[in-house]
Amino acid sequence: MFHVTFKFEHSDDVSIYAAPGENLLEVARKANVAIDAPCSGNGSCGKCRVKLLSGQVQTQPSRHISQEEFDAGWRLACTSKVMDDTTVLVPDISSAYRDRMRVADLDSKKEIEIFQRIKDNIIQAGIPLENHMSSLLVEMSPPSLDDTMPDNERLSRAICALTGADRVKISYFAMKKLPDVLRENDFKVKCVIKYNKEGTVGRPYVFDVTSPEDKAPICGLAIDIGTTTVAALIVDMETGNILAKASSGNGQIRYGADVINRIIESTRANGRSKLQRAVIGETINPLIDNMCRSIGLDRLRIFRVCVASNTTMNHLFAGISANPLRMEPFIPAFFETDSLNAQDLGLHAHPNARICISPNIGSYVGGDITSGTLASMIWNKEEMSLFIDLGTNGELVFGNSDFMMSCACSAGPAFEGGDISCGMRATTGAIDSCTIDPVTMEPTLSVIGTDPETDEPVPPVGICGSGIIDIISELYRCGIINSKGLFVREGKRIVRDEHGMGAYVLAWQKETGTQMRDISINEVDIDNFIRAKGAIFSAINVMLSSLGFDVSVIDHVYVAGGIGSGINMRNAVNIGMFPDLPLEKFTYIGNSSLSGAYCILLSKAAEEKVAQIARNMTYLELSNEPTYMDEFVAACFLPHTNASLFPSVQQVKLDGKGDAQ
Amino acid sequence: MFHVTFKFEHSDDVSIYAAPGENLLEVARKANVAIDAPCSGNGSCGKCRVKLLSGQVQTQPSRHISQEEFDAGWRLACTSKVMDDTTVLVPDISSAYRDRMRVADLDSKKEIEIFQRIKDNIIQAGIPLENHMSSLLVEMSPPSLDDTMPDNERLSRAICALTGADRVKISYFAMKKLPDVLRENDFKVKCVIKYNKEGTVGRPYVFDVTSPEDKAPICGLAIDIGTTTVAALIVDMETGNILAKASSGNGQIRYGADVINRIIESTRANGRSKLQRAVIGETINPLIDNMCRSIGLDRLRIFRVCVASNTTMNHLFAGISANPLRMEPFIPAFFETDSLNAQDLGLHAHPNARICISPNIGSYVGGDITSGTLASMIWNKEEMSLFIDLGTNGELVFGNSDFMMSCACSAGPAFEGGDISCGMRATTGAIDSCTIDPVTMEPTLSVIGTDPETDEPVPPVGICGSGIIDIISELYRCGIINSKGLFVREGKRIVRDEHGMGAYVLAWQKETGTQMRDISINEVDIDNFIRAKGAIFSAINVMLSSLGFDVSVIDHVYVAGGIGSGINMRNAVNIGMFPDLPLEKFTYIGNSSLSGAYCILLSKAAEEKVAQIARNMTYLELSNEPTYMDEFVAACFLPHTNASLFPSVQQVKLDGKGDAQ
Repeated sequence: MFHVTFKFEHSDDVSIYAAPGENLLEVARKANVAIDAPCSGNGSCGKCRVKLLSGQVQTQPSRHISQEEFDAGWRLACTSKVMDDTTVLVPDISSAYRDRMRVADLDSKKEIEIFQRIKDNIIQAGIPLENHMSSLLVEMSPPSLDDTMPDNERLSRAICALTGADRVKISYFAMKKLPDVLRENDFKVKCVIKYNKEGTVGRPYVFDVTSPEDKAPICGLAIDIGTTTVAALIVDMETGNILAKASSGNGQIRYGADVINRIIESTRANGRSKLQRAVIGETINPLIDNMCRSIGLDRLRIFRVCVASNTTMNHLFAGISANPLRMEPFIPAFFETDSLNAQDLGLHAHPNARICISPNIGSYVGGDITSGTLASMIWNKEEMSLFIDLGTNGELVFGNSDFMMSCACSAGPAFEGGDISCGMRATTGAIDSCTIDPVTMEPTLSVIGTDPETDEPVPPVGICGSGIIDIISELYRCGIINSKGLFVREGKRIVRDEHGMGAYVLAWQKETGTQMRDISINEVDIDNFIRAKGAIFSAINVMLSSLGFDVSVIDHVYVAGGIGSGINMRNAVNIGMFPDLPLEKFTYIGNSSLSGAYCILLSKAAEEKVAQIARNMTYLELSNEPTYMDEFVAACFLPHTNASLFPSVQQVKLDGKGDAQ
Repeated sequence: MFHVTFKFEHSDDVSIYAAPGENLLEVARKANVAIDAPCSGNGSCGKCRVKLLSGQVQTQPSRHISQEEFDAGWRLACTSKVMDDTTVLVPDISSAYRDRMRVADLDSKKEIEIFQRIKDNIIQAGIPLENHMSSLLVEMSPPSLDDTMPDNERLSRAICALTGADRVKISYFAMKKLPDVLRENDFKVKCVIKYNKEGTVGRPYVFDVTSPEDKAPICGLAIDIGTTTVAALIVDMETGNILAKASSGNGQIRYGADVINRIIESTRANGRSKLQRAVIGETINPLIDNMCRSIGLDRLRIFRVCVASNTTMNHLFAGISANPLRMEPFIPAFFETDSLNAQDLGLHAHPNARICISPNIGSYVGGDITSGTLASMIWNKEEMSLFIDLGTNGELVFGNSDFMMSCACSAGPAFEGGDISCGMRATTGAIDSCTIDPVTMEPTLSVIGTDPETDEPVPPVGICGSGIIDIISELYRCGIINSKGLFVREGKRIVRDEHGMGAYVLAWQKETGTQMRDISINEVDIDNFIRAKGAIFSAINVMLSSLGFDVSVIDHVYVAGGIGSGINMRNAVNIGMFPDLPLEKFTYIGNSSLSGAYCILLSKAAEEKVAQIARNMTYLELSNEPTYMDEFVAACFLPHTNASLFPSVQQVKLDGKGDAQ
């Protein structure tokens, strides 16, 4: 056995023993080292780069590693075999999904405003933010030799007297504390209670019993489990205030970037618990713990959980077989389920916290979309709206208060920085917008985040979705790339590898946060992104055609997803990703899956509304539409083979070229 | 640190490190070695005998260890300090509660007949044995591209169609299995279902889903958690058949023989989980596992649990503070509770199995008595009955279908062999009955159990409650002891220690199963037992007096408890334990706590009935009765200071003396 050590830039070493010849990516997985491997280890994506510091590995040559890089020690983990005691460096960019957990600074967040606005929209639509949870001060006469009623009956009777209920159910959690809490507080206590229904009293459920002085809020947890990114909020259930927000990469990323590879992984021995542990034990629970730490909250004060996620993600989260999702006839185990409690899943919350999952409508349109549709408010408008969620893959919902149709397109992970050599999530260090001087071809970048000590902008680490849109749009506007995404100009910023493949360097190695290599975008990246945007645009066209419409019918476009709040709609139209509509018709609504989950968490009525939305939404299977493939191929150009679809773009592009010449 | 090794006669060594001077009993507890210590380690009971095999301990002299025994290496663990690397032997009699787990051979058991009879009585009283659990074959049309309903909805709809229900709740346990089980069985499955109510359909609950060929029965678990002994049944919930029975000592015994010492122990650091682990993890779960193994059952097929136990035991079982039980005003946390599931307690059963606890009526009369009262059927008779449960301490219920009164007396653990130097539970190796030749003073013993290989009777190991009754009655009848329990004859079988204290040897060291020392009964044992029987008799008298009755009003006496099925009622009357009534009025009903739990397990109606019994039962606090102390002192003679209360006894005793002379 050889001893393999993984070193990190910002965390402690991890060591493990490996058999001679064992695959280095597999060894990393065993050691719970998250190395980004979107292609699930078949050598095609080139993202699992590690740097050999000592020892040796037997590795296959790859187009992703140049000779110069190879000489410097760079290897792809997935094509390397351990042949010695070995130490490798896992650079930040490869372990981005591990180290970049963020607990947001709430005061200064535009994001939080979006959540508040969506919550207000929901209320204005007549959906009360009532979750039937509240605290109740209960005072009892202490027991005596003449009044020997047991503790639970004493509490129940007092609650009945205060609420008009005729029975009370006390959780085991509260029962365990009850004798001590009653006596430490002279039989005057505060209870966390969930009423069955608004209006009627039903049978109140006692989640917790505390000192009457206890000031801890009654909290809930909203989680958006994306294939790539997980984001969560801790919310005060009584006021609706957001107390903490955090996000991180989905720990399942090491089992593949896409849902299909993860499902396959989950069918292996112990696969389901492995995948479940990756998303709960290694991702969500640390997020909860970090948020709780940041606001001084006991995680047992989380009494309700709402999860919005695609169908595969919520099956793997629940530890329920997702395998039928990938095989005809593609049947989920559930659309809706009321079977889950925190203790079933080992979630860091009150053991009896109910987990509400935003309903799926099929294998390919899940709870993230129903939740996002709720947040988009398109179900409450007479005018026709298009809702676009750009996560890993893209999903669309089109309709109004009368009908809604959804579809999913295989856009891949490019919008979240996947399949892009220097791609990353829209978090600290990501280039999120960019302009390029048409003459000098020099870029002007903006990067997410500031150094907490100096308050200076941080150096770039990679490029997020909105940055990629800008870069491609600018490269095209400046005539640096052609309609096919190939480099047609030369210059200092244009580099080519031994095969002649062009790339544009946005930041030189020395200027970057990792100082390990240039941040650039190459022709493969651009091609991947063009195919992703082509999938979105053709899906919009095919869905509207199937209804007998064209894009002119769209009154409003709501864009959501992890693409980055800096998304430039003009540039997104320029590259042919969105239809060429007036810019005022576009609104970026942030992480709508999470904001929808936030509303469902807070409101039983919103939970019913999203179930109704899900039941009424029809699903269009694009692969059954005969025109889809042709539409897709036609859309894989900048902006489109049919330039007449983008009248405003041609203008700009010509202007750009004019400047450059 | 010294290395301490505990050796056993029938199991593997256990080793642990101990600090110099550390108490040997504490060291044993840390090592999870169950050494019987009814006095909780204050040196008064003399039961924690161990034999020093190597090394040395510093020990205090004790009246429980003779010089000869000391020279042979015998020590009391509770008064010994570790001073060296040490090895001690823990004899069977001291670890009786550890090694004597028994899975009963059901075919030949009189006990099982008692359970069946009690079940029949319950049915005859108009209480249907209906628990609303059954299996249901469900066949669905498989999904297709045209029928993409998710698995849970498909199953729910099929169940609704079969049962007339309009909604179904599927457990998380079943949800996790559902996709695989459906597909492995072509969408034809067997479900374990609990209906809400008889007659009305309510919302069926799906516990489990299996192959339609699965033959495993739907099972329930009934447990009697005694302070000393735990007994359990696995029952087929559909037929009511008992599939397995097992019993063992309560692992909490190492924290003291009585409930008060255990409550005190539970208030120490981690005490509650320590006590809970001792009874669940170390006692009940192994019992379940052994029973399941013996009948080839998966423990996850246990879908309902009923527990009958005294108030302290059910609080410690549930991990709920029992401390208020021992302090005025002696308030339990619950009489009834519906908060408990198997997964809350880590019980080896289906995680969603509801744990029904037979209701307590106060701190000193618990669920074992309400359950036992249900089994006794005294609530269904017009005539006046007395129900006596001889467990650790004794509890009485007197009454009929119109009223019932209960009381508890501090009889101690003597009926289960506690506080008796060679006492043990009524299990294999226990002397359970005895006659003594008045002339030769030689005993004739019967011993519980036969050697499984030779089918020969096993040699004696100790004496159980029914054996002690016989021995004392015979010693008295033969004039060997006087009314005060002191030895007044001499002979080969009568031995005296250096203080002159007499003892009667029932089996010489060589004849015993352990071959370690004689099995005998001494004046301290007899005195302990006389005080125990005096407590019972005086409680009967005082309770009847408080109602304006005397013993002549009693139409029937039902005797229950771990005293042993061999109890000789004649001898029990002879020693003044039970009132001098015609023998045909006495019936031994075995472990009524367990048989009551068995009925409650099987029947929702019995569960309601026992709750009604509990609510209607009044409690008499004996210590508030001014005559109790005098009555008790008067009863601490053989048979009683007022011999006229026992007319039939005097006769027999005189006859006996006549024979002897």
